[in-house]
Amino acid sequence: MLTPLFRAVGGRLCAALALLACAGGAHAEDGYALWMRYVPAAVEVAAGYRLQLGEVVAPDQTPTQRAARDELARGLPGVLGTAPPIRTDLAGDRALVLGTPQSSMLVAPFREDIATLGEDGYLIRKVRSGGRDLLLVAARQDIGVLYGVFHLLRLLQRGASLESLDVRESPRVALRVLDHWDNLDRYVERGYAGGSLWDWQTLPQWRDPRYTDYARANASLGINGTVLNNVNASALSLSPAYLAKAAALADLFRPYGIRVYLSARFSAPIELGGLATADPLNPEVQRWWREKVEEIYALIPDFGGFLVKANSEGQPGPQDYGRSHADGANLLGDALAPHNGVVMWRAFVYSHEVPEDRAKQAYGEFIGLDGAFRRNVIVQVKNGPIDFQPREPFHPLFGAMPRTPLMMEFQITKEYLGFATHLVYLGTLYEEVLRADTRVRGPGSTVARVVDGSLHGHGLTGIAGVANIGVDRTWSGSHFDQANWYAFGRLAWNPQQSARAIAEDWAALTFSPDPQVTGPIVRMMMASREAAVDYMTPLGLHHLMARGHHYGPGPWVDGGPRADWTSVYYHRADRHGVGFDRTSAGSNAVSLYAPAVAAEYGDLARVPESLLLWFHHVPWDHRMRSGQVLWDELVGRYSRGVRQVQSLQAAWATLQGRIDPQRYQHVAAFLQIQQEEAQWWRDASVAYFQSLSGRPLPPGEPPPPHPLSYYQALQFPFAPGDGR
Amino acid sequence: MLTPLFRAVGGRLCAALALLACAGGAHAEDGYALWMRYVPAAVEVAAGYRLQLGEVVAPDQTPTQRAARDELARGLPGVLGTAPPIRTDLAGDRALVLGTPQSSMLVAPFREDIATLGEDGYLIRKVRSGGRDLLLVAARQDIGVLYGVFHLLRLLQRGASLESLDVRESPRVALRVLDHWDNLDRYVERGYAGGSLWDWQTLPQWRDPRYTDYARANASLGINGTVLNNVNASALSLSPAYLAKAAALADLFRPYGIRVYLSARFSAPIELGGLATADPLNPEVQRWWREKVEEIYALIPDFGGFLVKANSEGQPGPQDYGRSHADGANLLGDALAPHNGVVMWRAFVYSHEVPEDRAKQAYGEFIGLDGAFRRNVIVQVKNGPIDFQPREPFHPLFGAMPRTPLMMEFQITKEYLGFATHLVYLGTLYEEVLRADTRVRGPGSTVARVVDGSLHGHGLTGIAGVANIGVDRTWSGSHFDQANWYAFGRLAWNPQQSARAIAEDWAALTFSPDPQVTGPIVRMMMASREAAVDYMTPLGLHHLMARGHHYGPGPWVDGGPRADWTSVYYHRADRHGVGFDRTSAGSNAVSLYAPAVAAEYGDLARVPESLLLWFHHVPWDHRMRSGQVLWDELVGRYSRGVRQVQSLQAAWATLQGRIDPQRYQHVAAFLQIQQEEAQWWRDASVAYFQSLSGRPLPPGEPPPPHPLSYYQALQFPFAPGDGR
Repeated sequence: MLTPLFRAVGGRLCAALALLACAGGAHAEDGYALWMRYVPAAVEVAAGYRLQLGEVVAPDQTPTQRAARDELARGLPGVLGTAPPIRTDLAGDRALVLGTPQSSMLVAPFREDIATLGEDGYLIRKVRSGGRDLLLVAARQDIGVLYGVFHLLRLLQRGASLESLDVRESPRVALRVLDHWDNLDRYVERGYAGGSLWDWQTLPQWRDPRYTDYARANASLGINGTVLNNVNASALSLSPAYLAKAAALADLFRPYGIRVYLSARFSAPIELGGLATADPLNPEVQRWWREKVEEIYALIPDFGGFLVKANSEGQPGPQDYGRSHADGANLLGDALAPHNGVVMWRAFVYSHEVPEDRAKQAYGEFIGLDGAFRRNVIVQVKNGPIDFQPREPFHPLFGAMPRTPLMMEFQITKEYLGFATHLVYLGTLYEEVLRADTRVRGPGSTVARVVDGSLHGHGLTGIAGVANIGVDRTWSGSHFDQANWYAFGRLAWNPQQSARAIAEDWAALTFSPDPQVTGPIVRMMMASREAAVDYMTPLGLHHLMARGHHYGPGPWVDGGPRADWTSVYYHRADRHGVGFDRTSAGSNAVSLYAPAVAAEYGDLARVPESLLLWFHHVPWDHRMRSGQVLWDELVGRYSRGVRQVQSLQAAWATLQGRIDPQRYQHVAAFLQIQQEEAQWWRDASVAYFQSLSGRPLPPGEPPPPHPLSYYQALQFPFAPGDGR
Repeated sequence: MLTPLFRAVGGRLCAALALLACAGGAHAEDGYALWMRYVPAAVEVAAGYRLQLGEVVAPDQTPTQRAARDELARGLPGVLGTAPPIRTDLAGDRALVLGTPQSSMLVAPFREDIATLGEDGYLIRKVRSGGRDLLLVAARQDIGVLYGVFHLLRLLQRGASLESLDVRESPRVALRVLDHWDNLDRYVERGYAGGSLWDWQTLPQWRDPRYTDYARANASLGINGTVLNNVNASALSLSPAYLAKAAALADLFRPYGIRVYLSARFSAPIELGGLATADPLNPEVQRWWREKVEEIYALIPDFGGFLVKANSEGQPGPQDYGRSHADGANLLGDALAPHNGVVMWRAFVYSHEVPEDRAKQAYGEFIGLDGAFRRNVIVQVKNGPIDFQPREPFHPLFGAMPRTPLMMEFQITKEYLGFATHLVYLGTLYEEVLRADTRVRGPGSTVARVVDGSLHGHGLTGIAGVANIGVDRTWSGSHFDQANWYAFGRLAWNPQQSARAIAEDWAALTFSPDPQVTGPIVRMMMASREAAVDYMTPLGLHHLMARGHHYGPGPWVDGGPRADWTSVYYHRADRHGVGFDRTSAGSNAVSLYAPAVAAEYGDLARVPESLLLWFHHVPWDHRMRSGQVLWDELVGRYSRGVRQVQSLQAAWATLQGRIDPQRYQHVAAFLQIQQEEAQWWRDASVAYFQSLSGRPLPPGEPPPPHPLSYYQALQFPFAPGDGR
């Protein structure tokens, strides 16, 4: 709504200026705009863009076509400084042209070229056609066009040249999904960005515009699915009232190509249906699920399917009835199959009774089920065998179940990586996992090729990320955590991409394409995850955080209901040494990997030092490749991590004045928290391990300022995101 | 940060335009700006303003002086369309002049006039002085000037004439306080606007600009205190880590005249101090509190004091040690006195053991303590004797403790009034209570005069409101709930103000000064509370909501741990009649009021029908003033409430196109929810009471669409704001 005075003075120029001011002004720099800020291009670049993009020709018949137009109507005025007309027919002789061969006569001549794109693929190409200069964004389907529009807007925001533009893109993974661990009371388990985006209390009547902005952000990355509720699920999410609410969200997401999924509680037939059992082989149970699924599809015709956590950490599941995970998954698979829905069945299971090394349990439970799942079931495997640690080796199930589609489960929310306040870019973690070589079919059998289906020839493929999104104005709880959402989405589209290239893109879009801005930011991002590994769990240590909420160090955690919920279980430190022996002399978890990998990990001389204490129990005086003994190296790594955070602070300080003050201050404050907490991790960890090793600190290493008992006594009952 | 292109084109005009576009554009209309939208005045009005306000002369030496300048720098460009220079010395011959006699030579000549203002008061006056035309905003202290600036900005936003302007304002109440029922994990008890504003996890390092916007909004109303944490308090809010966080907030609020208070857990000396007791007469306990208070004041020199809920609903308190509420309050009062802090001691108490009518219990516990409290203790009394019901008579303690300062506790958050989705303007509720006549010193002994201290000559006075604020972008969970924050603040400043005038102000500032907008909106607001009374609890019924979360109807609620946590306790309906007999034949709660009031309330012929069933148990065939029998009247009221909500919807529909689409849609969706829930209340209540009365529905009244059992079976385990 323009104000009267504004109308009185303004013309088109003023409108554009006002738009620019809003998009780029200090007022807007609270992070809400994410990587879609649409601020003006440099003057000479904008002039060129205005020439080529002076007219937009785009169909307007479907919701997705209108979404593509809407996005250009948001983005082009911001970047170009003018709002080009958006028409359904060409008027001039230069234009941006959107469409499919069906929706656009201008696109139709390129039908053959387009036909070889994937379902969701697109091309962006400068062509000369019928005497006109056209920039085509073309695809087989509307959704591909929308993806192409977002790609083009990325290019424009980076100031890329449109001359000779020729992009062909198709996703390498079919299901690109965010998992929200959001409870129905809006509490987000492991959420550090405020409460859940989904305001169940006011749905379905109130359709908050933010839901559409969520869909836009995801579509801009190619994310095409969202699991609305926590894997620790309430059966009520499947009740009629909540299905009506989910359907309202699905309606809003549909134009953006995003399907809604739900986490299904396995015992829902008992809790909602009043049945006496949830046994997957019971015909009444089967009928209940069939009818429930029909009820869902009547409300949500493109419902994606179910995500299930079963027989894990107290959740109900098929084993309660003596059935297998395959029996459970197939029960739901059969119900969903007539509607083309899928089951994402989590492999994150470990038994309450089994004393086996937890790193082996999921493998042990699933390996025998290879080939036993229905065609619409995909098994969702966390990236590592424990639980989203700062560093883990890849999960041994990758490559080990050739007849079963395996879906990657990454965690975007930083449960174990400093919550929202630590700057830790996860692109490098994801990349490390995806590039890991399982060797199951010889060199080059990367995890990425398991996940994209190319290694074992699966068409049903997927990558899931546990979302870091909440109602916080930044969406992710911090400005830099937006990069992890972004990197997840880009890697889900193409797991072969480089984490650095993604960081460069994100930094340019989010802050500025100015190399004096992106240079330091990308360097900060690329160094950040290794810094966190160093100050939290260097050299293959893992699972040493405080109990429950996982906020801060807790290497002394022991006791409680389960050995593998303690820290001492994982580090096994004593007077003599430290580390978990997973060689053949120990738990033999190395044997779960392909022989070539097992040989490397199992050999103290060959194991990467970054995974040393994951696979080996080593004396404190073990000689490291640096020449130092392990104890000295360990302390040195902790201190190095702290110094690395100080370097992040110093790098950020160089950007003062180059970045809007609001985001500058926000990031600086969070880096201050990170610095203090890195120091805390270092001091507490050194104090603890020294109490066991009895060794002096290496020269130059300051002693922790407090005794160990001080660190052990700290309590944080209100730390965010705790499971409950 | 202006963008390069913007700088390239822009001059001052463009900057102003951009500001206008941001302030008034669709982008900004998410409610965040509250009543401080600063959109352009009508063209001819703005021209006049530019003439008078072409220059601002204001001191810049103190944080509060700078806050006043900052607010003008935000507001004037928006309203005027230009940004007048803000200087410390006068250049031209017309100006807006801010200051105190100490801070401004231009203000000094008006010293005597200013001296008669209250501490926080101000004047706004058009004067001719030294040959110049000045508009003065002057006060004894900086904070008064800031209040005056907000007042002036309100006038400008309403398009008021500046000619002959002569405003003198002083608050009639000293402590104007928001109580946040915010837990340290950011859960807000009875909060319907998302999580707590206070992000304890990132404090004190990160000082979110929103904290300052919170302070601005409060200061704009004259609110001068905030209790940061829930009255159901964790002792940890008094631990060093949390005090450092509270101190950071206090630093941000201080320039805006807002003092920080904390809810104190009475047993903190045990939980934090390791003492064996919290007995208020124990010297170690006294020393612990003294030292704790010293620790607080070292961090927060202007700390306001403590709010305490003791011996109520499971909270610890002095009665645990056989001591009185006065002993408990005085313990803290003595600790705070050297620092000029106050104790706000809640009278919302009722014993777990006492079978007495709950409406009498707080009175019974406190009446004997009149005069027993320290001079810095104020007893905080809820507006009515039960608990923030849609309608209650005024609390009988008001007027009954002449030697004790009594503070009003209103609830702004709508725990019992439809949460955030129902449009219920509370200004009329507050006004009704404040204008109620206690008669304790004859006619005119209003509750307002008890609260403002004039009736019994108290200087320590206060009004508290349980805040309805959270991280929701609207702050209050809905657009119209902002009006309740606004009305609370304005009435806390001056309890004699008219709810209608406040509604007119709010509607003009929040939506538009256009009478075609404010007219319907004010009519909606003024009718809204009576509508809610009708569809929830007409004719003096009370406490009939669902158990625990209080979402929706629950007149059938019985059983559980306490009779007075049920509905049947309060309505006492059976085959013969309905209502709580509080006459001398019943609990005799009427006797707690002054004789003149007791005589009216206790007499079936004289009691206002709006309180009929609060004070009387009446047969279903009791003849009402309308001529109908009670049963027919009751059903008719329920249905009238539903129709009134439909009228709200119809009135709102007339505003489509006159209100920005975002807020229009948002309010329309919430009205739809309200309409559905009003119908639910009516149907469930009618079904329930009919099951008891056995009477037919009056002619024309449709039967509830479901049997009673349907309504009784509805469960809402995830309703927001539940206590826990």
